[in-house]
Amino acid sequence: MNPLDINKLPTFRQAGRGYLRAPCPMPSTPASMPRTTNRVAALFGVRYPIVQAGMIWCAGWRLASAVSNAGGLGVIGSGSMYPEVLREHIRKCKAATDRPFAVNVPMLYPNIEEHMAILIEEGVRIVFTSAGNPATWTGRLKERGITVVHVVSSVKFARKAEEAGVDAVVAEGFEAGGHNGREETTTLVLIPLVRDAVELPLIAAGGIGDGRAILAAMALGAEGVQVGSRFVCAEESSAHPAFKKAVTETTEGSTVLTLKELAPVRLIKNGFYAQVQEAYQRGASVDELKSVLGRARAKRGMFEGDLEEGELEIGQVSAGIRDIKPAAAILERLLSEYQEAAERVRVDGRYHIGDRAATSGLG
Amino acid sequence: MNPLDINKLPTFRQAGRGYLRAPCPMPSTPASMPRTTNRVAALFGVRYPIVQAGMIWCAGWRLASAVSNAGGLGVIGSGSMYPEVLREHIRKCKAATDRPFAVNVPMLYPNIEEHMAILIEEGVRIVFTSAGNPATWTGRLKERGITVVHVVSSVKFARKAEEAGVDAVVAEGFEAGGHNGREETTTLVLIPLVRDAVELPLIAAGGIGDGRAILAAMALGAEGVQVGSRFVCAEESSAHPAFKKAVTETTEGSTVLTLKELAPVRLIKNGFYAQVQEAYQRGASVDELKSVLGRARAKRGMFEGDLEEGELEIGQVSAGIRDIKPAAAILERLLSEYQEAAERVRVDGRYHIGDRAATSGLG
Repeated sequence: MNPLDINKLPTFRQAGRGYLRAPCPMPSTPASMPRTTNRVAALFGVRYPIVQAGMIWCAGWRLASAVSNAGGLGVIGSGSMYPEVLREHIRKCKAATDRPFAVNVPMLYPNIEEHMAILIEEGVRIVFTSAGNPATWTGRLKERGITVVHVVSSVKFARKAEEAGVDAVVAEGFEAGGHNGREETTTLVLIPLVRDAVELPLIAAGGIGDGRAILAAMALGAEGVQVGSRFVCAEESSAHPAFKKAVTETTEGSTVLTLKELAPVRLIKNGFYAQVQEAYQRGASVDELKSVLGRARAKRGMFEGDLEEGELEIGQVSAGIRDIKPAAAILERLLSEYQEAAERVRVDGRYHIGDRAATSGLG
Repeated sequence: MNPLDINKLPTFRQAGRGYLRAPCPMPSTPASMPRTTNRVAALFGVRYPIVQAGMIWCAGWRLASAVSNAGGLGVIGSGSMYPEVLREHIRKCKAATDRPFAVNVPMLYPNIEEHMAILIEEGVRIVFTSAGNPATWTGRLKERGITVVHVVSSVKFARKAEEAGVDAVVAEGFEAGGHNGREETTTLVLIPLVRDAVELPLIAAGGIGDGRAILAAMALGAEGVQVGSRFVCAEESSAHPAFKKAVTETTEGSTVLTLKELAPVRLIKNGFYAQVQEAYQRGASVDELKSVLGRARAKRGMFEGDLEEGELEIGQVSAGIRDIKPAAAILERLLSEYQEAAERVRVDGRYHIGDRAATSGLG
């Protein structure tokens, strides 16, 4: 009855603080760079506005606490957990870090009432809701002082989330792994549209696999990012080692958004996907698609490592992921890449649009 | 025999230099911002590394010369032109601007040999090739001193283009309008992958509708951008006014990538698309799809303004396009938005990742 066997995972001292204490370069900041007043970091009380996505079968207490200990926001993915398993993960996470962490609750899953009751009982301070109506739970959570973030894939739902009183939104583009929006709007297009539509702190998701993409998200108007695929390949992720390895071997076009008639999901094209394709080709009904999907396909693939018969959810950025690292090292690299990209765009004229003042004589 | 009636278009003095000479704000550049050494601008000999896409039925001599006169690179889209019409557009464009301009040649179209012969005869200096093997034409064009740019949607073809000896690549993501790649890789994911794979000057395309997206593209490692949809709604675009209006009325999810069995194309979901969907639902063969597509659908929609029966190719960024402006005003706005975004990311701590040096005491 315990789908995530947390006992077989390394302890806190091995996995969490150990990495945090590892020596890591701390480059000095250019004097011209102002101190952060980042709203996402302030809202969560974390050092960096980098959120680890609450991915099913990958994001247990071990990953969440490692990310939080490293200065990001770790998120437990409750979508693959029975209620009492979720309780255990929350307790282990609290024991493993004294920093803020969150729980993601996909509202399309069946145990939602029980999950929410447990979150409240266990004193979780930050909840990410997704795949459902933000009006349903936001009020009840906020009454208890819980910070609520809703995941959207369109301006329409970003506005609904704002009306429902959430504290921030995650806007997730077509390139993201796992469940996804029907409009297929990409992150590059979605973020400016959402930025112009809502006042809330805005977190970009989908396609954020390195520090260049973090800077791009900030350029588009996001104030933080949510990173999923990159953390699937964290050592502390509870993904099966075979799945992690498969992720590092993907290339462009390895993933596809499919099952749009049920709930659109991005996954690796494998044997299971071939069965889905076959069903489409014979004109299968929604019920037939459901029977192909069957039960526990995601667990089978991502947690048990059945790369052919299982469902392997991952984002397009997996094409750029080539290694499995501790979460703290991944976060450090994201920060270094971000600072390099910011410096490059700031000082390297190669990445500059022409200076209108200096060249106006050309007119 | 003249699908683009160039005689009904405004003259150069009305459309081109007139806009260029209009007063426009020239904000001073912060002292910290270096002079551009941008390779894309240098390659083309233009002031700004902003390329107007050579869109069929929209990008004739009038649009191309207006963009070039304003400091970008105007591109004539030859895909919708008979050979002699192309010759006329090149000549009119040369008469309308003394600045560099280019011609785009989709290599899947039938008149390719004649088109290339005309380009060479007319002394075109820059050619963009797309939808075909870059090895076929690059050598022959470069022998004549012509600058060759190839449009790709994957790392694989970016490498092939580099091997073929092109001078630069345009990497175009899933969100782009018109013909598109099979891998469905979005611009946010594609640009860093291509940047890491080739040394060539890199131009980002797909989802670039405002200056924030230009800065995002630079953050990802692009050195220039190609803008399509935004210039469809230029006054000088030869798109039918009804099509331009339809573009300004799109919202998220208005476009879709379809006809993947033929050549994937992004278009507005209209009556024509409903016919395509109906064909899919009855399990139509590729030949049946071809007959639904029929002939001249794109001309009917984009040039003749039949919004129901015509094919209306546009990118996802159309959801953020709300007005029809002169090309020079569009370019000015892109530059202003880019500078605002660059300044915001540079000085506004709200868009900063936490400063590791300043906060390292938190560890």
